[in-house]
Formats: sequence, C-alpha cells, structure tokens
Amino acid sequence: MSGIHIISEKELRSLVKLDLEIVESVKVGFSELEKGNATVPPIMMIPVPEKSGEVDIKSAYIKGLDRLAVKVASGFFENSKLDLPSGSGLMLVLSSETGFLKAVLLDNGYLTHVRTGAAGSIAAEYLAPETVENVGVIGSGLQARYQMQGLFLKRKFSTIRMFSLDSDEVRDEYVRDLEKELGVKVIKAGSVEEVVKESSVVVTTTPARTGYINSEWLHSGLHITAMGSDTEVKQELYSSVFAKADIVSCDLKSQCFRLGELRSAVEDGVLSLDSPVVELGEFINKKNPGRTSDKQITVCDLTGVGVQDTMISLTAYDLALKNGIGTLLG
Amino acid sequence: MSGIHIISEKELRSLVKLDLEIVESVKVGFSELEKGNATVPPIMMIPVPEKSGEVDIKSAYIKGLDRLAVKVASGFFENSKLDLPSGSGLMLVLSSETGFLKAVLLDNGYLTHVRTGAAGSIAAEYLAPETVENVGVIGSGLQARYQMQGLFLKRKFSTIRMFSLDSDEVRDEYVRDLEKELGVKVIKAGSVEEVVKESSVVVTTTPARTGYINSEWLHSGLHITAMGSDTEVKQELYSSVFAKADIVSCDLKSQCFRLGELRSAVEDGVLSLDSPVVELGEFINKKNPGRTSDKQITVCDLTGVGVQDTMISLTAYDLALKNGIGTLLG
Repeated sequence: MSGIHIISEKELRSLVKLDLEIVESVKVGFSELEKGNATVPPIMMIPVPEKSGEVDIKSAYIKGLDRLAVKVASGFFENSKLDLPSGSGLMLVLSSETGFLKAVLLDNGYLTHVRTGAAGSIAAEYLAPETVENVGVIGSGLQARYQMQGLFLKRKFSTIRMFSLDSDEVRDEYVRDLEKELGVKVIKAGSVEEVVKESSVVVTTTPARTGYINSEWLHSGLHITAMGSDTEVKQELYSSVFAKADIVSCDLKSQCFRLGELRSAVEDGVLSLDSPVVELGEFINKKNPGRTSDKQITVCDLTGVGVQDTMISLTAYDLALKNGIGTLLG
Repeated sequence: MSGIHIISEKELRSLVKLDLEIVESVKVGFSELEKGNATVPPIMMIPVPEKSGEVDIKSAYIKGLDRLAVKVASGFFENSKLDLPSGSGLMLVLSSETGFLKAVLLDNGYLTHVRTGAAGSIAAEYLAPETVENVGVIGSGLQARYQMQGLFLKRKFSTIRMFSLDSDEVRDEYVRDLEKELGVKVIKAGSVEEVVKESSVVVTTTPARTGYINSEWLHSGLHITAMGSDTEVKQELYSSVFAKADIVSCDLKSQCFRLGELRSAVEDGVLSLDSPVVELGEFINKKNPGRTSDKQITVCDLTGVGVQDTMISLTAYDLALKNGIGTLLG
C-alpha cells in the first residue's frame, strides 16, 4: 500500500480513453461540486511573460473520496519556435486521509485533453438536440478532436463541418483522422458562418481573443459549446449570442464569470452575475432538465474545473493499480 | 537534456544540508523578491477539515532563472493517531523557458525544513547581536532543530535553553542530539519565561494559537525569530512584543500580515499595514542595515515564501545533476 507510483504518459494513454466510463467519472465530479461536496480553490497562476508562458495549478478535494489530485499545467506559446508543443503538465494524486503522495501521473497534458473532452460530452448529453446529423467545430487542434469524440459518445452524427485557421496540412490531417476514427464525413468549411448555419451542434476550440460567432447566424435548435476561453483575455462568442440563448450553462459559474465567455457577456451588459446560468452539475443532479425542446438555442461555457482533474486522476490511478501498471518507488 | 529526473528523499538528504551554501542560495531568492524580480502567487490551500488536514501549494518564478519550482506540502494533524508524521510533500522543477517538467523532488518535506532553517539563519545574520552565548528555542520538534542549526551557522553560541510541551522522551532526544551535533550545552528550561530572560536569541517553533511570549520578559539586545505561525489562526508572540521592538522584520509583508504574527499585531492595533516592517531582502540588498546596536530589541516573523522553495529546489536539482544522482525517466 505504501510507495509512490510513477505512471508515464505512454502508460496513461494505454489506460485512459475518452469513453463513456471516463465521462461518467467526470460527471461524478460535477455532481459532487453541485451538491457542495467539493472544495475547489481558485486557480493558481504563475505567469512567465518573457516566454508568453503560464503555469496553472488546479485542484479539488471531494468529500468522501480518499484521495485528491493537484494538476500542474503549463502553456508556453513560444514553444512552437522550438518545435515543441505549447502545453505540458502532470497530475499528482495525494491521500486525502494522510496528505501523503500516492502517485505522479506524468501525463504531459493528456488527461486534461480527455477530461475536457468529457465535459463537452456532458454538455452535449443535456443540451444537444436528441437527433443530430450535422455538427461543427471551430479549430483543428487537439481539442477539436477530443470534443468531436466526446460529442460522438452522446450523439451519433454523420457529418462534421470544420473551420480552422491552421495550415492545409493540419486541416487535411484532421479530416483524414476524424473520418477514420468516427466513420463520419468531415468537410472543410469555408467560413465560421457556414459551420454555424449548417450544424445542430457547434463546438468552439480556439484561443481567440475576440468574438467570432455572430448571433445573426444562430438558428432554432442550435447548441454551442465554447471551450476555448479560460483566461480574462479570451473570447469566442459575441455577447449577443447569450442574448439569443434559451439556456445558458457552464461548468462553474465563479470561474466562467471570471475567465470564460460569461466574463465578456457581463462586461457588455448582456448577462449579469444574477442571470440564470445553469451549471453542469444541476443537469446531472436533475435539478434542471436541460434542453426540453428541439427549438431551443443553448450555450455551454467551459473553463475546466479542478473536480474534473481530481476525478480523471483517481480513475487513471485506479486503472493503473488494477492493471499493475506504473513504476513503484520507495 | 530531456527526460524527467525523479530524486528520492534519501538522495536529497545526501545532497542537501543546511549549510552556508544553501543559506546563500535562499538569500538570492529573498534578494530577487525584494528587487521586484520574483512573482509569488498567493498560496493555494486545499483544506481537508475531516482529517484536520491541509494541502498547501507555493511557488515563485524568479526572472532570469531558467527554471521555477512548485511545492506541494501537506499537514494532516490526525496522522499521529496512525503513527505517521503530519507533514509530507514534494517539489516540482519546471523549465521557465518551455514549462516542461524537469524533475520531481520526492523530499517528503525535507527541503522545506532546510529552507525554513535557512530563513532563520538569514534573520540571525542581520538581527542577532554580534556575540551570542545563550540562545533559546520554544518547541523540540524538527524546526527546533533546524532553527538552532541555522542560527549556529551565523553565531557560535555555547548554550541552548529549550522549553517544550513534548514528552520527556522527545525532549531528552532533543538534548542528546543537539549537544552532539553542535557541541553545545542544551538545558531543558522550566518555562518560556526562563528561556526568554536567559537568552540573547530566541526562536519560537510551535503551532500555538495564542501568544505565549510575554513582552515583560523582553530585555535589551534580544532578538526573536517567530517561525511557527503560517495560518490565520496561529500566534506565538503577544502583540505587545511588537510594541517593544526596535526593528520589526519578516520574510514577506503581504504574507505575514495575513498569516503570520503581524496579523494578530494588526488586529490588536499594535501595528498597522503602514508600520515600518523590514523584509529580509532589504537587509540582503543593503537597503536596511539590520541591527545597529547591541541594545536593540528585534523581531522577525517568518511564514515561508515560494522563493525559498524555488531556490532550494533548483540548488538540489543542480547538485543531483552534477553528482549524477536520481532516476531519469522518459
């Protein structure tokens, strides 16, 4: 029982996939958060402006669980000059009974990608129309992949329309990979407008700093998940989108009003801190029914919450223990 | 150059000692902090009240250094029921150029003990009288040891008076160990009053929640370092001690006014946020001379600052690299 498990990225990738089991474990995190059983301290940010970098630390303690996780995630946006990925990181699993370190998950950001995809999947479960043929995604990076995978777990769509400012090469790879992985048609759209107008569900996955989803393009039955904004300076949706939404939801209000799309919506006077905004946990705990008609326009703002990190870390660690994977030190 | 170094507690204990070299490296941290070159985010605290526990995360980025550290430290005060130490933890070394993880220092709190002893040593360097024969310590735990070791690096005293509420066994062990280690006489004092009245330097190292150092016992030439309080509810010095002090100093004002002795002194109206309080970095950077007469009464309040953790982590990691110590993963 003692000793510290070191689990490599390769091992974690073999153990953890974005599947319904993982989505269920992340739902437990949001459910406990909504019940008031989770302590989520404010995100700790260590800016390194000289390298356009930032180290963010997230954590959550969920009452009744015998372990908690601490995540250290880096984003250094000059890494591309060195041909390195901008993101990296690890998760630590600590006993919540003794405080002792149990495991170091050297996931290099992988578990964050998966738990973020899982949050998108949860949003779709409660807010996407029941039947979905055409979906859209803005961006063609890693989250553009995970979000479509997470969505596919809940809605068996047949076509993805993707718009992205990435290179032809990156976009072609996206088309090839997603067509193969999900067995769907992937279309390179000519504009954001085309994506929004032709899709029942749109997921925005960019680090944009000004809105680019125009409320004039919204249509009956549309659901939008915006997962790109996680700092005070990012924004993907024009505030007017919120004025047209029948349901506004998010992962954690206190975070989204500070770091997400809700921030700019408040700044522009479209929302206030008292506006009815539904957290994912309220859907999960059946305190809010989510979408009740195929005509509603719904929006979900995701910033990423420590409970997701704690839940995916504990699940990954349990899988490692069960499968005898990892290196035991000490 | 790539890969992640895992360095065990045993390896770290063999590499890092509380010596003048380590004290100098911690001084660099305080010096840069004072110059405005360090970013020290507020401490992240994850309370686990069910187990009288808390996980604290500290960090600091020092401009010009190519790495930074993140420390995760736990204190779980019901561990004694399980015959386990209350404290544990680890430090992470990240590149401040790419954000990538460089090393995991599984120090289990050891480096924190050393860097805390180093801060006491720095306080003594600038505030203890030049010649010191008799010193005192309140408490007989680990910091009661490290603080006396740190003090001995700067002042070659001959006698320690120790008062502690610990068991006879723990106190006897303290006497035996410190006499052997430092070659000084260690006396079990009968009261805090005796310790204060008979000593030129007193270090308080307890988790007390109400003051126990009475200002009536203070005498000309006394220096007190109070390192026990690091939360809103702890206190070792009665506020009246500050009223009698000629120099009030601390490691980081913003922290000490929130978590240290300065907090209770402000609450009691003895100090205000504008009172002249000197940070350790001001002594190191020669912006304040420290003690200028053998008659002054001086106090230093230590809460522990992320720059100490970053400096000791980088020093430990460099020593490990230089000596080829640690396990390289990936």
